[in-house]
Amino acid sequence: MKKLIKNGTVVTASETYEADLLIEDGKIAAIGSNLSANGAETVDAKGCYVFPGGIDPHTHLEMPFGGTVSKDDFESGTIAAAYGGTTTVIDFCLTKKGEPMQSSIDEWHAKSKDKAVIDYGFHLMIGEINDDVLQEIPRVISDEGITSFKVFMAYKNVFQADDETLFRTLVTAKELGGLVMVHAENGDVIDYLTKQAIEKGQTDPIYHALTRPPEVEGEATGRAAQLTGLADSQLYVVHVSCSDAVEKIAEARRKGFDVWGETCPQYLVLDQTALEKPNFEGAKYVWSPPLREKHHQDVLWNALKNGDLQTLGSDQCSFDFKGQKELGRGDFTKIPNGGPIIEDRVSILYSEGVTKGRISLNQFVDITSTRIAKLFGLYPQKGTIAIGADADLVLFDPTVERTISADTHHMAVDYNAFEGMKVTGEAVSVLSRGEFVIRDKQFVGSPGTGKYVKRAKYGQTLTANADEVISK
Amino acid sequence: MKKLIKNGTVVTASETYEADLLIEDGKIAAIGSNLSANGAETVDAKGCYVFPGGIDPHTHLEMPFGGTVSKDDFESGTIAAAYGGTTTVIDFCLTKKGEPMQSSIDEWHAKSKDKAVIDYGFHLMIGEINDDVLQEIPRVISDEGITSFKVFMAYKNVFQADDETLFRTLVTAKELGGLVMVHAENGDVIDYLTKQAIEKGQTDPIYHALTRPPEVEGEATGRAAQLTGLADSQLYVVHVSCSDAVEKIAEARRKGFDVWGETCPQYLVLDQTALEKPNFEGAKYVWSPPLREKHHQDVLWNALKNGDLQTLGSDQCSFDFKGQKELGRGDFTKIPNGGPIIEDRVSILYSEGVTKGRISLNQFVDITSTRIAKLFGLYPQKGTIAIGADADLVLFDPTVERTISADTHHMAVDYNAFEGMKVTGEAVSVLSRGEFVIRDKQFVGSPGTGKYVKRAKYGQTLTANADEVISK
Amino acid sequence: MKKLIKNGTVVTASETYEADLLIEDGKIAAIGSNLSANGAETVDAKGCYVFPGGIDPHTHLEMPFGGTVSKDDFESGTIAAAYGGTTTVIDFCLTKKGEPMQSSIDEWHAKSKDKAVIDYGFHLMIGEINDDVLQEIPRVISDEGITSFKVFMAYKNVFQADDETLFRTLVTAKELGGLVMVHAENGDVIDYLTKQAIEKGQTDPIYHALTRPPEVEGEATGRAAQLTGLADSQLYVVHVSCSDAVEKIAEARRKGFDVWGETCPQYLVLDQTALEKPNFEGAKYVWSPPLREKHHQDVLWNALKNGDLQTLGSDQCSFDFKGQKELGRGDFTKIPNGGPIIEDRVSILYSEGVTKGRISLNQFVDITSTRIAKLFGLYPQKGTIAIGADADLVLFDPTVERTISADTHHMAVDYNAFEGMKVTGEAVSVLSRGEFVIRDKQFVGSPGTGKYVKRAKYGQTLTANADEVISK
Amino acid sequence: MKKLIKNGTVVTASETYEADLLIEDGKIAAIGSNLSANGAETVDAKGCYVFPGGIDPHTHLEMPFGGTVSKDDFESGTIAAAYGGTTTVIDFCLTKKGEPMQSSIDEWHAKSKDKAVIDYGFHLMIGEINDDVLQEIPRVISDEGITSFKVFMAYKNVFQADDETLFRTLVTAKELGGLVMVHAENGDVIDYLTKQAIEKGQTDPIYHALTRPPEVEGEATGRAAQLTGLADSQLYVVHVSCSDAVEKIAEARRKGFDVWGETCPQYLVLDQTALEKPNFEGAKYVWSPPLREKHHQDVLWNALKNGDLQTLGSDQCSFDFKGQKELGRGDFTKIPNGGPIIEDRVSILYSEGVTKGRISLNQFVDITSTRIAKLFGLYPQKGTIAIGADADLVLFDPTVERTISADTHHMAVDYNAFEGMKVTGEAVSVLSRGEFVIRDKQFVGSPGTGKYVKRAKYGQTLTANADEVISK
Repeated sequence: MKKLIKNGTVVTASETYEADLLIEDGKIAAIGSNLSANGAETVDAKGCYVFPGGIDPHTHLEMPFGGTVSKDDFESGTIAAAYGGTTTVIDFCLTKKGEPMQSSIDEWHAKSKDKAVIDYGFHLMIGEINDDVLQEIPRVISDEGITSFKVFMAYKNVFQADDETLFRTLVTAKELGGLVMVHAENGDVIDYLTKQAIEKGQTDPIYHALTRPPEVEGEATGRAAQLTGLADSQLYVVHVSCSDAVEKIAEARRKGFDVWGETCPQYLVLDQTALEKPNFEGAKYVWSPPLREKHHQDVLWNALKNGDLQTLGSDQCSFDFKGQKELGRGDFTKIPNGGPIIEDRVSILYSEGVTKGRISLNQFVDITSTRIAKLFGLYPQKGTIAIGADADLVLFDPTVERTISADTHHMAVDYNAFEGMKVTGEAVSVLSRGEFVIRDKQFVGSPGTGKYVKRAKYGQTLTANADEVISK
Repeated sequence: MKKLIKNGTVVTASETYEADLLIEDGKIAAIGSNLSANGAETVDAKGCYVFPGGIDPHTHLEMPFGGTVSKDDFESGTIAAAYGGTTTVIDFCLTKKGEPMQSSIDEWHAKSKDKAVIDYGFHLMIGEINDDVLQEIPRVISDEGITSFKVFMAYKNVFQADDETLFRTLVTAKELGGLVMVHAENGDVIDYLTKQAIEKGQTDPIYHALTRPPEVEGEATGRAAQLTGLADSQLYVVHVSCSDAVEKIAEARRKGFDVWGETCPQYLVLDQTALEKPNFEGAKYVWSPPLREKHHQDVLWNALKNGDLQTLGSDQCSFDFKGQKELGRGDFTKIPNGGPIIEDRVSILYSEGVTKGRISLNQFVDITSTRIAKLFGLYPQKGTIAIGADADLVLFDPTVERTISADTHHMAVDYNAFEGMKVTGEAVSVLSRGEFVIRDKQFVGSPGTGKYVKRAKYGQTLTANADEVISK
Repeated sequence: MKKLIKNGTVVTASETYEADLLIEDGKIAAIGSNLSANGAETVDAKGCYVFPGGIDPHTHLEMPFGGTVSKDDFESGTIAAAYGGTTTVIDFCLTKKGEPMQSSIDEWHAKSKDKAVIDYGFHLMIGEINDDVLQEIPRVISDEGITSFKVFMAYKNVFQADDETLFRTLVTAKELGGLVMVHAENGDVIDYLTKQAIEKGQTDPIYHALTRPPEVEGEATGRAAQLTGLADSQLYVVHVSCSDAVEKIAEARRKGFDVWGETCPQYLVLDQTALEKPNFEGAKYVWSPPLREKHHQDVLWNALKNGDLQTLGSDQCSFDFKGQKELGRGDFTKIPNGGPIIEDRVSILYSEGVTKGRISLNQFVDITSTRIAKLFGLYPQKGTIAIGADADLVLFDPTVERTISADTHHMAVDYNAFEGMKVTGEAVSVLSRGEFVIRDKQFVGSPGTGKYVKRAKYGQTLTANADEVISK
Repeated sequence: MKKLIKNGTVVTASETYEADLLIEDGKIAAIGSNLSANGAETVDAKGCYVFPGGIDPHTHLEMPFGGTVSKDDFESGTIAAAYGGTTTVIDFCLTKKGEPMQSSIDEWHAKSKDKAVIDYGFHLMIGEINDDVLQEIPRVISDEGITSFKVFMAYKNVFQADDETLFRTLVTAKELGGLVMVHAENGDVIDYLTKQAIEKGQTDPIYHALTRPPEVEGEATGRAAQLTGLADSQLYVVHVSCSDAVEKIAEARRKGFDVWGETCPQYLVLDQTALEKPNFEGAKYVWSPPLREKHHQDVLWNALKNGDLQTLGSDQCSFDFKGQKELGRGDFTKIPNGGPIIEDRVSILYSEGVTKGRISLNQFVDITSTRIAKLFGLYPQKGTIAIGADADLVLFDPTVERTISADTHHMAVDYNAFEGMKVTGEAVSVLSRGEFVIRDKQFVGSPGTGKYVKRAKYGQTLTANADEVISK
């Protein structure tokens, strides 16, 4: 079935122009002015931007954490994502030390395949490096199309890997074409500060922030970046929250290191004072790294503008306030970390970034979609509006004014971190491979239609005549 | 007359995809796979990249300098540009203190209009700021569409402006929507070092380089950037040649200043030793700023990759070795500054940048065309392949291997600065607004068909519903 | 006549120890425990520190400025200095373009010789460099012992020199053994901002600060430092007021450049809000560079601690509020710049620096005396307590608590910039070449006993077997 | 017995002057010109500088390492030190995990007390932090006068501590008045690179350097400095070898962190090529961190000049080439790390630093003695020439020219790392607490006369009325 998207303003990471788009077999077949329908279903995009679908590079759907499980699974999570204008997610597959990584991958396939309403892929956590792990990695890359590997420098005695593991993962990724992702906080220092706080009876949510100050993120980010330079490898720093970390990434990039940085909407618009909300409501705003003092926000925005940071992830990991966040009453260390962000990621960047003049419209597309596709081997199937690309499209009305609220959101949890925030712009309709998932603001998709995507190696494309799409 | 470019690989600043392009009325009308000709002339681009035409933001055609005049005029210069894959040039209109700027603009129109074979615009030199100048500028912007203004920090007693002029130009540009360009070298220090050298009998071409060391460029670049920050204005640093200057631009950008940097092919591939060639041949390599020691090249390439530098200009200002460069025999200060680069600008960046893996194919397009169009108010008429854009196109064969030589080049001068250099890739055919200028490597255009382009204000586009295309 | 200072705690730039000091012929003859008097007059220093006399490297006594003359002359100024624990001043001799520098020097000798109560020297202003000036400098160094030369980068059309003058002064100083001092503010930008402010009716004292923001000081400091590096010369930046300038000095020093920085008490303890005092009282706080926002103070203190700044000057240039500062009512540009600081310089650094733990006691001596002596060729005659050094000594009681006030100060002006400030510590007795100038807090000296001191070249000492005392 | 040192030139960290010194009861009793002997033994120091005795803050005497024991013990080691002008050493007491630290301290007392010919103290290694350790530290400080604690970031599975141990040591030191010392190299990365090298058969000494590149030292130094800032504690980085580490220390100091750096003679004058000497002779030059490429030397010298580095240690840890260094034939990881430097530390800094104009004479004294005394709580008993200080003195003839050689040195090993190097200046006579240890270049002391020195807390002096001598 063909579709013709008419009268929209097409926006890519570098272009903005009025054109019609013809979709055939789920792909972009033609772009032109006044294309004739020729039997295609016509969709009027008048007054709308047509964006490539957003790609969320950082989700934790139905993930076990601290004795509970994140609430949004691949069904509610991807439905909410779609409502927000996101058509692909890459979720973190957690591994367990001593067990085959494939078993974790299988588990992740099991919980996603019949649920996802949009396409998805997996990153793989590396908790240790040994002969078994080294043997599995090439197969994971070739057979599973998993080409990005996450190392945690924090969560001591849980996820935390030592520097040898980080360095060997970097060396291995370089050899095999993977991209190493790091959660960059110094877990040893956090562990000590946390114990000290608890010992002193400092148990409120705000101590979550105070026991993991910006310095521990800055230090770990710098360390990871320096090891990357030494290994001549490639690094992607997830959820950058503060100027300390931005400086280290910028410094590494100035030296020519292949280091990339992601931030998240919460760090751009919320600040540390949220953790001080009364009635334990501060727990809703517990992320790691934590929200920072307000002055860090300008640095993050400036970094998105000047290219020191390149992408926006949601770090979606949602928990109900009732019953889940509340586990940490009387002990902030027991508050499940994370929040419901997947739905509003795109909107917030548009509203706070583009309409407030902090970034250009094209940068917005690059940051929420194109650059992510290129870094994680989804390009040019995903992340762009170009002939032959998947027709993952968002019809976005830039004039709508609305208020974010748990009352109206589509995530499965009982609060929204941006409750009451007014934003400009809304995804009106969303297509995944040419089929509507959202149509006129209503979900029209069905669970299980989202497909698992095998991704290309770092620096390569998914097409046969692969150009190097990323400068090394 | 319609044309259909078939079977090429379209490349923009962010995309690479196989598609046909339909041209109507000199503009891109449709992009698609297997578009039908419908009476359009078909052009086979098989095996070729299809790039948006290159834009050279920095030329000095038929310019008086040091008692002589640069050899390539708007005819030979634009023909050579076209051969090299450039479809727009922006030339520097020099003004004279105490005279109306309009008279200089008229002079520049006179020498270009019947000669240019591709489209062109003008930058305007600001040598002083006084009430007359301040009165003229708004009209120059609105009537002439000249929206970029050049201030020289060097050439003492000739072009050099003082810091007050620079600062007021920045303030004025901010108010009116102009972009300030600087030639950043400390002219006072150079003047002194030059006199000292001549006094000591150090008259060979190499002393041109030694009397304007990287430090004087670094200092002036930093000064201009700091004044830009103070004025909250916008700055474009032309012909960045050394790490000293790159550092200052990077530092300013980290602070969120709106500072941009251009480098030139000569700084990327030639070095200071060229000025020591015997038989006065070093004079062929006299630019200001001068060629630098080789280690600066890596810094420039890295800056193009990581975005600290954004564009490539030619600084085309050609003189014959015989009779012109030779004016400086026995006194390097009399060597006309500049060289013939307009033809090879695009090729060299492709060959040294893309094929050697230093930048991506999309970055190449951004650096030679798209970003320049956006910065200088030509976008989206120029600088892109998108529906409604001018069909300024280059069919580029990336497989050709050839050798640059004065024997085969199309510039009017008797030497080529890159003589003997092997490059990969060549512009096979070039279209300006849908008409061939170069077809199968032969010039088929005619003088006078190039049109003067009025440009939009800084941060605006040429289209009616102008978005902010550049992040401020 | 011999004197024996008993029971004090001797403090030098590196040592603190209890000892008696024997003075003979105006010089330190012996240091020991329980030295016997042997006919020497005994002075009990019990409970006191014995410091080398302070050296003020930056005074403008009886200096014409803006149509008036600074109030404190070499008599009242040096008496006040002595009260504050300063035993040597180096005053700026202003020259006039087109006139022999010697005539200015003669003028300065005339106004100082019968008045000074402590020793003194002169710096010489360089307003232009031409053959006459170049011819005079060697004689000024050898005959007058003037070895430091001041260049103004601000005060356009008054004192301001261009970059060529600055650079040539640096080159000349390098050759002849001089130290170049700069007033580092970008005068061109200030001139423009000032005119703009006046045009807009912004005439209050606060606009003095707002029209010469930290950025213009940072820029000029960086420029001077870079030219110093290029000339391989030596630079002393006077009255550093802000982090912008400190950063540039630190950066230059990291590169190994021979760049030094002085700050002043007013920048360490006062801030920009003082210029907003009602009833035109803000005029009392008009210095150039101006007082800054409070956060700059920490940076200055930290720079004194870590060695990025090395000395403290007063920039003494006092004017009555009545009749002098008032000249600027209705037009801040007519407020004479400067204030009465000579008396409190040492006390404030002791009280705010040492007693508050920001710098050590030995650093205090280095900053107020020893380092200045070494930089300006007074060492080891001045600036230390060592065998053979002039017995310029301060007996300082660190326990006194007192309040600074114009009611009790000894400067000739009608206000004190630190009015009401509580400080700890006071100079009880002060000796110049072994004779009391201040005894038990009373002035006992007489005008004309202060001697002019010819200074050694930069990097040399005043002694015959001169070691290099400063690392080059 | 009294002594009178006549006719010398006394040099301290800030002063240089001609004076006689009277010694009574092992302390400086008087300083003066033409002091009368009054029954004191007269020592003629004509033509000599009189320095405070050198203090070596970094020795490993008779230390077990890699299955062998460093050759020089407290007898031969301190004799050699004295020959070289060093009168105090601080040796590293190694602890064992799980054992009481006191037992290690007792062991160190046992091996030193009957052997040392000059005074000495101990630093204490912290390998882990637990309740036992935390309980012992206060007593170690108060009873043993051990106030500096060493943490290793390298030597994985041997000495290496994790970041939690480092951070807790910093926190504890802050509370109790200790100074934390770090061996800053990333041991995890080194461990991996080393295994990889051995696996590839890269077993020669040069691979020792190649498997611990400057980046691992830079990273660890930056990490330690950042943790110090976070803990608001104090840090001393031992044996800084490269620009990467200097940059991190400089950066920390610019932020106001209390971070200090030591380098060693070998890094100032030797370079990495030494490890490539044939016949396994490269093994003589195996230190950790390793010798670096030559360009690092300039950075180290500049840092000593501008104060980014403050002290010079020897890292004395000597092994015979025969039988000891040779253990590593065929496997560089088995080469005992370290070399014989204790004797030449002072000479080399004088000769290469002072006579070559890189640092001043006073800086030389500060770097080799005074600053070390102040940092490690030995001041003012040690490290200065002042009334009441121990008469630890060096009579140094700056005119002697000599050649360093194992043939003439006094260390117990069979080679000298500086073999054949010509130096200017020599310690002629050396006194410890007023008694000759070296007289006219002959050892005249006796083992066991050296005393153990209990040291003051960080930032305090050994005297009763302790001022803060170091700026915090």
